[in-house]
Amino acid sequence: MGKKKADSDRSELAPGLVVKTKKRLVVAAGSSHPDLAHAVAGHLGTELVPTEHRVFASGEILTRFEVSIRGCDIFLIQSFGPPVNEWMMEMLIMLDAAKRASAKRITVVAPYYPYSRQDKKGRGREPISARLVADLFKTAGADRVMSVDLHAAQIQGFFDGPVDHLFAKPVLLEYFQEMLSPEDRAKLTVVSPDTGRVRVADQWSDSLDAPLAIIHKRRDPNVANQVTVNDIVGNVAGRVCLLVDDMIDTGGTIVKAAQALKAHGAERVIVAATHAVFSAPAAERLQDVSIDEVVVTDTIPLPEEKRFPGLTILPIAPLLARAIKEVFEDGSVTSMFNGDA
Amino acid sequence: MGKKKADSDRSELAPGLVVKTKKRLVVAAGSSHPDLAHAVAGHLGTELVPTEHRVFASGEILTRFEVSIRGCDIFLIQSFGPPVNEWMMEMLIMLDAAKRASAKRITVVAPYYPYSRQDKKGRGREPISARLVADLFKTAGADRVMSVDLHAAQIQGFFDGPVDHLFAKPVLLEYFQEMLSPEDRAKLTVVSPDTGRVRVADQWSDSLDAPLAIIHKRRDPNVANQVTVNDIVGNVAGRVCLLVDDMIDTGGTIVKAAQALKAHGAERVIVAATHAVFSAPAAERLQDVSIDEVVVTDTIPLPEEKRFPGLTILPIAPLLARAIKEVFEDGSVTSMFNGDA
Amino acid sequence: MGKKKADSDRSELAPGLVVKTKKRLVVAAGSSHPDLAHAVAGHLGTELVPTEHRVFASGEILTRFEVSIRGCDIFLIQSFGPPVNEWMMEMLIMLDAAKRASAKRITVVAPYYPYSRQDKKGRGREPISARLVADLFKTAGADRVMSVDLHAAQIQGFFDGPVDHLFAKPVLLEYFQEMLSPEDRAKLTVVSPDTGRVRVADQWSDSLDAPLAIIHKRRDPNVANQVTVNDIVGNVAGRVCLLVDDMIDTGGTIVKAAQALKAHGAERVIVAATHAVFSAPAAERLQDVSIDEVVVTDTIPLPEEKRFPGLTILPIAPLLARAIKEVFEDGSVTSMFNGDA
Amino acid sequence: MGKKKADSDRSELAPGLVVKTKKRLVVAAGSSHPDLAHAVAGHLGTELVPTEHRVFASGEILTRFEVSIRGCDIFLIQSFGPPVNEWMMEMLIMLDAAKRASAKRITVVAPYYPYSRQDKKGRGREPISARLVADLFKTAGADRVMSVDLHAAQIQGFFDGPVDHLFAKPVLLEYFQEMLSPEDRAKLTVVSPDTGRVRVADQWSDSLDAPLAIIHKRRDPNVANQVTVNDIVGNVAGRVCLLVDDMIDTGGTIVKAAQALKAHGAERVIVAATHAVFSAPAAERLQDVSIDEVVVTDTIPLPEEKRFPGLTILPIAPLLARAIKEVFEDGSVTSMFNGDA
Amino acid sequence: MGKKKADSDRSELAPGLVVKTKKRLVVAAGSSHPDLAHAVAGHLGTELVPTEHRVFASGEILTRFEVSIRGCDIFLIQSFGPPVNEWMMEMLIMLDAAKRASAKRITVVAPYYPYSRQDKKGRGREPISARLVADLFKTAGADRVMSVDLHAAQIQGFFDGPVDHLFAKPVLLEYFQEMLSPEDRAKLTVVSPDTGRVRVADQWSDSLDAPLAIIHKRRDPNVANQVTVNDIVGNVAGRVCLLVDDMIDTGGTIVKAAQALKAHGAERVIVAATHAVFSAPAAERLQDVSIDEVVVTDTIPLPEEKRFPGLTILPIAPLLARAIKEVFEDGSVTSMFNGDA
Amino acid sequence: MGKKKADSDRSELAPGLVVKTKKRLVVAAGSSHPDLAHAVAGHLGTELVPTEHRVFASGEILTRFEVSIRGCDIFLIQSFGPPVNEWMMEMLIMLDAAKRASAKRITVVAPYYPYSRQDKKGRGREPISARLVADLFKTAGADRVMSVDLHAAQIQGFFDGPVDHLFAKPVLLEYFQEMLSPEDRAKLTVVSPDTGRVRVADQWSDSLDAPLAIIHKRRDPNVANQVTVNDIVGNVAGRVCLLVDDMIDTGGTIVKAAQALKAHGAERVIVAATHAVFSAPAAERLQDVSIDEVVVTDTIPLPEEKRFPGLTILPIAPLLARAIKEVFEDGSVTSMFNGDA
Repeated sequence: MGKKKADSDRSELAPGLVVKTKKRLVVAAGSSHPDLAHAVAGHLGTELVPTEHRVFASGEILTRFEVSIRGCDIFLIQSFGPPVNEWMMEMLIMLDAAKRASAKRITVVAPYYPYSRQDKKGRGREPISARLVADLFKTAGADRVMSVDLHAAQIQGFFDGPVDHLFAKPVLLEYFQEMLSPEDRAKLTVVSPDTGRVRVADQWSDSLDAPLAIIHKRRDPNVANQVTVNDIVGNVAGRVCLLVDDMIDTGGTIVKAAQALKAHGAERVIVAATHAVFSAPAAERLQDVSIDEVVVTDTIPLPEEKRFPGLTILPIAPLLARAIKEVFEDGSVTSMFNGDA
Repeated sequence: MGKKKADSDRSELAPGLVVKTKKRLVVAAGSSHPDLAHAVAGHLGTELVPTEHRVFASGEILTRFEVSIRGCDIFLIQSFGPPVNEWMMEMLIMLDAAKRASAKRITVVAPYYPYSRQDKKGRGREPISARLVADLFKTAGADRVMSVDLHAAQIQGFFDGPVDHLFAKPVLLEYFQEMLSPEDRAKLTVVSPDTGRVRVADQWSDSLDAPLAIIHKRRDPNVANQVTVNDIVGNVAGRVCLLVDDMIDTGGTIVKAAQALKAHGAERVIVAATHAVFSAPAAERLQDVSIDEVVVTDTIPLPEEKRFPGLTILPIAPLLARAIKEVFEDGSVTSMFNGDA
Repeated sequence: MGKKKADSDRSELAPGLVVKTKKRLVVAAGSSHPDLAHAVAGHLGTELVPTEHRVFASGEILTRFEVSIRGCDIFLIQSFGPPVNEWMMEMLIMLDAAKRASAKRITVVAPYYPYSRQDKKGRGREPISARLVADLFKTAGADRVMSVDLHAAQIQGFFDGPVDHLFAKPVLLEYFQEMLSPEDRAKLTVVSPDTGRVRVADQWSDSLDAPLAIIHKRRDPNVANQVTVNDIVGNVAGRVCLLVDDMIDTGGTIVKAAQALKAHGAERVIVAATHAVFSAPAAERLQDVSIDEVVVTDTIPLPEEKRFPGLTILPIAPLLARAIKEVFEDGSVTSMFNGDA
Repeated sequence: MGKKKADSDRSELAPGLVVKTKKRLVVAAGSSHPDLAHAVAGHLGTELVPTEHRVFASGEILTRFEVSIRGCDIFLIQSFGPPVNEWMMEMLIMLDAAKRASAKRITVVAPYYPYSRQDKKGRGREPISARLVADLFKTAGADRVMSVDLHAAQIQGFFDGPVDHLFAKPVLLEYFQEMLSPEDRAKLTVVSPDTGRVRVADQWSDSLDAPLAIIHKRRDPNVANQVTVNDIVGNVAGRVCLLVDDMIDTGGTIVKAAQALKAHGAERVIVAATHAVFSAPAAERLQDVSIDEVVVTDTIPLPEEKRFPGLTILPIAPLLARAIKEVFEDGSVTSMFNGDA
Repeated sequence: MGKKKADSDRSELAPGLVVKTKKRLVVAAGSSHPDLAHAVAGHLGTELVPTEHRVFASGEILTRFEVSIRGCDIFLIQSFGPPVNEWMMEMLIMLDAAKRASAKRITVVAPYYPYSRQDKKGRGREPISARLVADLFKTAGADRVMSVDLHAAQIQGFFDGPVDHLFAKPVLLEYFQEMLSPEDRAKLTVVSPDTGRVRVADQWSDSLDAPLAIIHKRRDPNVANQVTVNDIVGNVAGRVCLLVDDMIDTGGTIVKAAQALKAHGAERVIVAATHAVFSAPAAERLQDVSIDEVVVTDTIPLPEEKRFPGLTILPIAPLLARAIKEVFEDGSVTSMFNGDA
Repeated sequence: MGKKKADSDRSELAPGLVVKTKKRLVVAAGSSHPDLAHAVAGHLGTELVPTEHRVFASGEILTRFEVSIRGCDIFLIQSFGPPVNEWMMEMLIMLDAAKRASAKRITVVAPYYPYSRQDKKGRGREPISARLVADLFKTAGADRVMSVDLHAAQIQGFFDGPVDHLFAKPVLLEYFQEMLSPEDRAKLTVVSPDTGRVRVADQWSDSLDAPLAIIHKRRDPNVANQVTVNDIVGNVAGRVCLLVDDMIDTGGTIVKAAQALKAHGAERVIVAATHAVFSAPAAERLQDVSIDEVVVTDTIPLPEEKRFPGLTILPIAPLLARAIKEVFEDGSVTSMFNGDA
């Protein structure tokens, strides 16, 4: 078996057809947030891939790309607000369809990462659903994931491949820099609603050159969604308080924080968060008199019934579009955030 | 590095603790079909593992086993009727929790396999969701799958591991053998509602020693859920017709078949199917005058509003319980069906 | 560990060499069907990669590509007629060689998919060899599979990656459209030899605008290769009958069907099938007086001793070459079949 | 191929040899912390598996188990203090040897998880080494991981399999409950040295029924290992302060915290931490006058030169031994911590 | 989501059924070497699992276990002499069937490992088929491999799991110790037929306390199966020469070596090898006058036409049976060889 | 679910952005051998990617690429001399960082492959560390491996992917062809220091057209690093002896061989080896009077204290650079060695 034909090794190349390679960026979307998806495509100067989403009477979903995506660098956009499980299965089915349709590279664009709060076992025999989600994406066909403001940065490590972790802070900051008057800026205090979130508030206080305050609450471990505001660290009397968090779900924590701030003399309370999950009864709660303004991005669609006076919604599409372009063109996503990612 | 210490290889066993091994069969269930799950546990002479299923306001699910399942041979029962995507995510999360809780072996018990009709690409750029489901189960932690009457037997090949494929025919047959009078038996004809299902009807005609008829319909490929009954092959005039199928979804096909049978002189039309998906408007349709009786199993839960006079529901739990026992005790599932599986 | 050097993040690109990317399509072949492989290469305007296939006295195989295939998009053609196991091992060894030779993407071109009839467990403790084959291809290095007229479309779901499923029907149809006289066309009836194949015959009757007939046979489950023709559904007397199937193995079923058609008054019987396995004694059987013509493609090589008067062999190479070109150039294979794939 | 031999399916079991199953727990150890390993084995009532660890002149390592471990449930103990990379490679090589020696189940016991602080990308193009470590363990052969007080609980989600996450708090708490006089208890305040660690301190304050204080420092993101103590939240004057953290590395943070506490009038400062990494110059720093006592466990070996007056080292072996026993006997590790794990 | 029900964690075990665990050893075999398989089963005191092997007219294989093997520790015996590719596919199909039939652990028993000589790339673009074989076994379902005298010990490293590497030397040695007279023993010289095999001959010379000689040949790299005997190192005149090798394929090398020995005055030449591949024309060649006796084992079946006067075949079944028993009972295979494995 | 919208399949391509593809070759390096890495980059006409390697006080490593490597074809160079375990972990961490930084293809360039001598189980319960290393590379992110003169060619088969195996022989040969005078050439004899290495020496004797001699030594299996020179095969008296080996570790074998050659009358002894591990006390030993010159390459860095008079170090960078270029440009590495690789 070690024998060799002396003349068998020709150094020339194999015969064949040679063409120059092009690559094609395409964007498709699930059913969860069409406005966002169209906006991203628009910022990229293109349109969404025409895609059929059918829901059968049995509840089963069928997704089909109506034009060829063979060899494409495809970005699949889905927003994982409620009903999150429908959107998850739709995304997994889209991934399977894209993989079998010979897409060259598939990126899940999940502006809000589903199940991000179940990122560890709180007790014995719990799942770690955020890891599970990463594995499901991978199994269904995802090569990469792009997301905004993960609840815990460790979730990047759950996916076995590259994760582009974007930050909404520049988007929010720009808004406040324009909106706040010099007087407000002088009275501004950044407040963390929770001791587990102080580092984020810290970065905001750096960026805005404003002092920091902390709400020190203790949650009762046996009662769901009940918080007990204990204390406010730092001076808030007469201040314009900017309460910052990564997400607002039912709004319970944030409203109690705002009430405490007002009770301690805060002049105004502005709430800033990236992800507006706004599960009921968030929309009602956030109209509490203690809150003067709520500023969020549209990583999750907000139907009319979840909107209210005093709510400002900033578009996240420009950020996503720019990141997608950097990824497609082998640029740098890190440089979008001055090295913060 | 090839050097060896002459005396270093002692033939005695490693020091340690030795205990005799026991194995423990436990059954847990998702939220989709508690009656079935309790019935299976009951037939096994045990109870379900106490399991917490929580649904947060955001729609995210948390499942937790309330007692230790470490080292157990666990069977997770879920029925994949509507809302199928909720039940899928719940199952995947249960699998993750069971895997991380150190269960020794995990079996998905899916009496009705989800997305079983999307078992191939009907057109380009479609998903093969039945394969996707198998991969998701595997990724989340499933070692094995048990199911009843798969829509296509090839789905067994989608899972990378053992699949116990059970058949409801013995359950249904036993019912008819008791229920039908000798006169009815003499007039019985087995009817396939579809040319793609003739083999199944064939087996029934064998078992019941009754002649076979076939509804030859052609579906219009451009109009969804529309069927065109073309012809009836075989003699149905004056006969007691037994229409058999694996599942009934919206009931459109089956009702048109029954109407055609009656139009051709059938004396009675009885419908038998394993899986009663009964998506709207199945319950209304099946009360059509052309149908005299509908017999199904309870692989999918049937709430009151989907039940109607003339519907008989046979319990599938004894079959599942027996198969689980055979699997646990390393017996033979094949022998339950006389070599048919 | 969270410390950062303020100036360490330079936004410029990494230093390196940059070249424009080309891609190269090459075609290589196993030993099973050199005529087909050369024809495919010819249709693509190229030649086969010079490849050494050696079989040692011990029966072991050694395959070696004689020129560099580094970075190529390589298509490996093998036809899986008898001796199928030799061709399987040769293909697996070719895949390993191509993978280790740094081919960029490897596609198995299997015009006839091996073990396609073992696509489910017929009884307990059987293998699912069609899934096994898919896994073996993947393990050995295949990124993609291309095949023609799979015995069951579900086999697409057995491979964990893209499968290009081609259809020979256009090739066969074109032949009949040219060959049949207007009088024959007027008398044409499409016949399914088996109730399990009616859907395929249906599509033919659509395309040819001809009526449909069905041979309803029941196989005796205990006697191998014996079929019992029971009945003919539809009118065949005085008709030109076109018996269609995906493959002909030993020919037993098809000959009995033809005899039954003639016995019921058929004027002529033409047989059309994609895959001519022609295991002994197919060549003798198919020369039965009941059969007027047999039309197949050359997905499997047909040596002289398997050919006979009345056999027409249509070339499949143009179809394969076109599909390979679409795959290489990121075109659409689906569009080759008007959305039928 | 669908044919069946009618009599071929015998329901009896396969012929063979049957024995009752026993399982054997064995413990082996790397070279990093022999005292701990022997103590764990001792608490389990057994001895370590005799294991040869050889380091060649080239620095390459060879590990060999000197007695058979075939079929065993083996626990491999390694402590990942410095030189951490040597211990990592030794562990990976032990895992490979155990896997190839046919151990039935292999658990990595890493009382201190290596690279646990690199659990996310702090900046672009950084690794996530804690995830990498989990993958390396898995690849080399680990079925499970056991660890104590992970730096971030999310690390559990990095390993694709069960992780037994133990807590040293009961060990430390028991010590303080015995050691502290009633007067001290009355004056006790739990202090978090860092805003990112407040939840841990919270749990301690719960357990000890003592008030909480927080050191709010801001790290300069551009200067390594520099901390700036900003403020102390809560009352510490005249109090016995218990500074709690999961680990002490170079000791910089903790000493500055202690100095701040004393500067604000603290009567005594006691430091409690699970993992005593004690990288230079920790041993000197921790002898600062501001610190009255340091209490740690021996998850990492502490050679004489790292010990000093005022240092108390509590044994972690009983906790590990108990958890190993629960795992081996399919008991509950969760129940060891009253549901906290 | 971090909320907890205080009373939800019950420490009791999950409800369920508990039985003591037994394990069952069963042996099944492919079609290649039934005598060996029966002999192994006999030495274990049991019988082979009744197994159906069918070869269809198309050459495709179907294997089916006729009785339940659920939960068994199954050993699948196959000898990989010619036709090696048939036996490979049969083994892979058996593995798939065993995996899907829920065997608990599956061991490939390959007394002679197929494609063992293709263990590296001799030239560019060659496969490494011995690695491929290991991966195919794994993919099809093998948990472990057992083999005798691998051509290169590195092949153990090709399989991702435990490999039990057995040695036939004790079997062969025992024969020579009985067969050789004291006078022959005094004149014995061990000869390596090839410079690449000296280490093996060395071990034999150690065991037999006999001097060593070496045939130093150089193969012409351009001419297949041609060897050029250059020289004999060591004294062979008047000696009883024992030529040892791992395998004899076509016999070319060994006959030239024997002729050279006789030409240099050897009194007798005895050939010993483990694997008798005996590809044509080995049987003729080995009857050359220069060879006085050939001693092999029956790892490969030797039909009558490959046997000849002067050939002694030693049974390998006792060695395999003992190793299987050690594996099943968690004993030590290493101890069978005094630490040589 | 099989329904289709007739007009839904548009044949045009998906909308999107299209750009021509470029590819970028970049080279980065670990800390082990900066001179070699810079030389390789220089030969390629570029510079190394600026990379931060930080070692924390705890011994943990952090690697970060300081500029974007997104989409690059990156080659990571590391030399695995001592401290080998540090360099292994650094390489694994670099791989993880490169994978997460979205490099397109990652090649490990390991001029000297670590743990190459542990390529099989010498005894029971040993690891196969060379296979482990291959798996660790793969797990951490490597797509390909490039190495020089592997200790056993079978190691190529350990990696699941392409391995470019380079040979230093042309580099060494060129040196000798220039350095040796015609008189020396006429007296040249190639000597193998070991019977396991004769094939390599054979190839040298071919290339240099010089006779061959063999040192036949037997190692005492129970005493580490002790060799017993037994005999010299071939004529060495009055000859210029060229002792060739793949590597020199502690130098024990090679010095004893040289002494034996001189004792048998060799005029000069020159030692040639690819890998200069030079573990202590190699540098002292190799200055023995029996050795006239030592020629090695710089695959491993040689600090001043390991250098000595009579040592010649040939640069390996040109060979590596050329191979990297061939890989990047889809040329042929095989052709660099006239078909020997």
